Amino acid sequence: MFPAEVYIQRRKRLRELVGKGVILFLGNKEVAMNYAANNYPFRQDSSFLYYFGLDMPGLAGMIDCEIGGETLYGSDPTLEDIIWVGKQESLHEKALKAGISLVKPLERLDGDVFRVIAHNRKVHYLPPYREQRRLQLAYYDNLKYEEVDKNASEELIRAVVDQRSEKDSHELKEMEETMTQVTREAYAAAMKRIMPGSYEYQVAGTLEGVALEKHCRMAYPIICTVNGQILHNHYYGNELKKGQLLLIDAGAESNMRYATDITRTYPVGGKFNHQQKEIYSVVLNAQQEAIKAIKPGKPYMEIHQLAAKTIATGLKELGLMKGDIDDAVAHGAHALFFPHGLGHMLGLDVHDMEDVGENYIGYDEEFKRSEQFGTAYLRMARRLKENFVLTVEPGIYFIDALIEKWHSEGRYRDFIDYRNISKYKGFGGIRIEDNVVVTAKGSRVLGKPIAKDITELEQLLKA
Amino acid sequence: MFPAEVYIQRRKRLRELVGKGVILFLGNKEVAMNYAANNYPFRQDSSFLYYFGLDMPGLAGMIDCEIGGETLYGSDPTLEDIIWVGKQESLHEKALKAGISLVKPLERLDGDVFRVIAHNRKVHYLPPYREQRRLQLAYYDNLKYEEVDKNASEELIRAVVDQRSEKDSHELKEMEETMTQVTREAYAAAMKRIMPGSYEYQVAGTLEGVALEKHCRMAYPIICTVNGQILHNHYYGNELKKGQLLLIDAGAESNMRYATDITRTYPVGGKFNHQQKEIYSVVLNAQQEAIKAIKPGKPYMEIHQLAAKTIATGLKELGLMKGDIDDAVAHGAHALFFPHGLGHMLGLDVHDMEDVGENYIGYDEEFKRSEQFGTAYLRMARRLKENFVLTVEPGIYFIDALIEKWHSEGRYRDFIDYRNISKYKGFGGIRIEDNVVVTAKGSRVLGKPIAKDITELEQLLKA
Repeated sequence: MFPAEVYIQRRKRLRELVGKGVILFLGNKEVAMNYAANNYPFRQDSSFLYYFGLDMPGLAGMIDCEIGGETLYGSDPTLEDIIWVGKQESLHEKALKAGISLVKPLERLDGDVFRVIAHNRKVHYLPPYREQRRLQLAYYDNLKYEEVDKNASEELIRAVVDQRSEKDSHELKEMEETMTQVTREAYAAAMKRIMPGSYEYQVAGTLEGVALEKHCRMAYPIICTVNGQILHNHYYGNELKKGQLLLIDAGAESNMRYATDITRTYPVGGKFNHQQKEIYSVVLNAQQEAIKAIKPGKPYMEIHQLAAKTIATGLKELGLMKGDIDDAVAHGAHALFFPHGLGHMLGLDVHDMEDVGENYIGYDEEFKRSEQFGTAYLRMARRLKENFVLTVEPGIYFIDALIEKWHSEGRYRDFIDYRNISKYKGFGGIRIEDNVVVTAKGSRVLGKPIAKDITELEQLLKA
Repeated sequence: MFPAEVYIQRRKRLRELVGKGVILFLGNKEVAMNYAANNYPFRQDSSFLYYFGLDMPGLAGMIDCEIGGETLYGSDPTLEDIIWVGKQESLHEKALKAGISLVKPLERLDGDVFRVIAHNRKVHYLPPYREQRRLQLAYYDNLKYEEVDKNASEELIRAVVDQRSEKDSHELKEMEETMTQVTREAYAAAMKRIMPGSYEYQVAGTLEGVALEKHCRMAYPIICTVNGQILHNHYYGNELKKGQLLLIDAGAESNMRYATDITRTYPVGGKFNHQQKEIYSVVLNAQQEAIKAIKPGKPYMEIHQLAAKTIATGLKELGLMKGDIDDAVAHGAHALFFPHGLGHMLGLDVHDMEDVGENYIGYDEEFKRSEQFGTAYLRMARRLKENFVLTVEPGIYFIDALIEKWHSEGRYRDFIDYRNISKYKGFGGIRIEDNVVVTAKGSRVLGKPIAKDITELEQLLKA
């Protein structure tokens, strides 16, 4: 945990931003894998962590915006607990770590919430993402299960996004250290397993094993695939063959649950072929140009468009695209090869704060979500501020089903050279991703560099 | 998956056992970790796996006991899916693997269930262990959320326990191979990390990393602790110190989700001291005697009592217990040192079938659950049959809080020598666990042996 003062200040600011009513944060509960006593690794709710820091199940926090009172609800360990689970902190001791002096048994929470409602005061809560929480909120809201999500507090959502978007020095340090000490090391170990005859699961297992040995977990399910063109792909059963590309998208979650999110694409056998080198260079160039362009005040939509143009320019030189690049990108032709957004916010969640709704995080009055295929998937469009942390992750993919569909529909014939695409059959996909902090005058890549230059990669893979 | 014929036969037998009405198996859904798109690793429901074998979310199965009809509900992949997730099997192809020819879209399930209810036919279901399933069942049951668990079908529970208790040759092979190829290898790798200066999480991470590299996961959260006396302990933050004991309780889950469940206790620094050797020998002796005594027809309660007596006898020789051993165990005095059950059934769940209710699995007309501290925690008491798979896991622990409580209450003063216990302050705990198949005439430990003799352990740790 950070010092108690950090949480005290965060809650104080939150009270000011929300202004009226009572804020309710329900901590997460355990979730059963295959029966009630066999649980998944516990994952605390990220906003609960942000405002209370306590990473264990069975807690709730209530903040009164007007009176200023703050209560932590939970349970004290019993003698039974001490016998079976060992010595535990009291609820009061836990609360003090978060800078809270008033604690109550969890059983008192329902009554306290109903009392607030009875006084016609608003109970602010964030949208639930697990059924157990949705049910509990429905109970408070007169069992209108279907309306729970809709009744989430917009004031609270906006305040939370406002606060959590700008990372403080404690948070940046935590992310930076996790990147250098865990994620970077995991990639180094994984690279040693990349060779013809290995299986995807061996590389993925090595990566996750390193994180576990460093007392971390992964922030999200690893992607480790020779089919990088399949974007939502968690299959690890393929054998690596010489000449293939292996795309790895993985990041450790720190002890305090801050995420890292890195993607690298490696040549199986240690050397890129000519075609791979060309495409790789286009992606790397797009990523580096994007990182250079990041600075406070700049809309991330512009950076996304810059990356799209860099990619389209590169693909034009290779004969895969044609015509006017600005036109091509404006019409969305590049999305055949780069069909996703350039990146997203990163913090206590890998898609930071995504539980409250994507549009609250990346869009605002000035930037509305595009409806164009590709750009529509951009999670972050609005103007950047200092201490935002973002992923920068352009990619080029050859997705058979998409190419066939567009080709048969005759889509963007003026911008895409479909004849030349056939030469890339079976190419796969390349993505390169780093995590970037917006600084006062520009940007900085988080952590010690993780190899991504062609020469450096080939040298490391040879070793 | 096993051959389709296996699932066809299992369902045929189930229809016969249940006899009337319709059986509904709801497959598991994804569960969000910290927002809707970031899920825990998917874990299919074990009974769904047993009868349908299909290990992916979004499925349900319905079996008509009288007409004999079998339907698989699910979804076909869309073009969108193929673009983002890659080529997928159709629902029909999946169903054929489970030997089912009739498939319907998942959206048709609710209507079909309500039609069965409208015809006054019983819908048999197993008790839910996740809120999402409880909610769905409540919807069918006129929204009586509180009554869902109570209305679970006893006929179905008994039939499922009857079938899943006796493992067939396919299942035994799967468990055997996982034990030898994964769990055993994971222990071998972990042992190399056990040395002064290492941390518990490094050993635990090595263990889990090996499972992941072999395309498996763990069947349950690893216990890896220098405080083996804290039985429900998932803390891994301690540094290993010379002279301590490290207790590891871990088992890989096979690709087909069969569990293994092994415990070993190792001396940090490579050599047991005299006191540790004495206690270790008592535990190992109790385990070996128990394994020898297992055979069809024998109640597991008797084996548990045999282990308790072997432990009590050993502890009497060491001056920790006294008086008549049969009396001491009958009164439950041994439970100060051995406060848990000897073992449980093992299969698709590490506590096999525990979701349907412990008493259905381990108890029956003949054996009712004891109310005595210690024995009350025994999960399995009834008579053994050939092809049951069980854990055999005696232990001896020095639990300060429990010792203080009993001592201050003057409990079992005739059987326990509290003065001598003080010499074991800080000892920790020792448990040794293997998985055993009941054979026609006796029993067999699953998999290639995992070192547990003192001499063998000390030699391996030296290497």
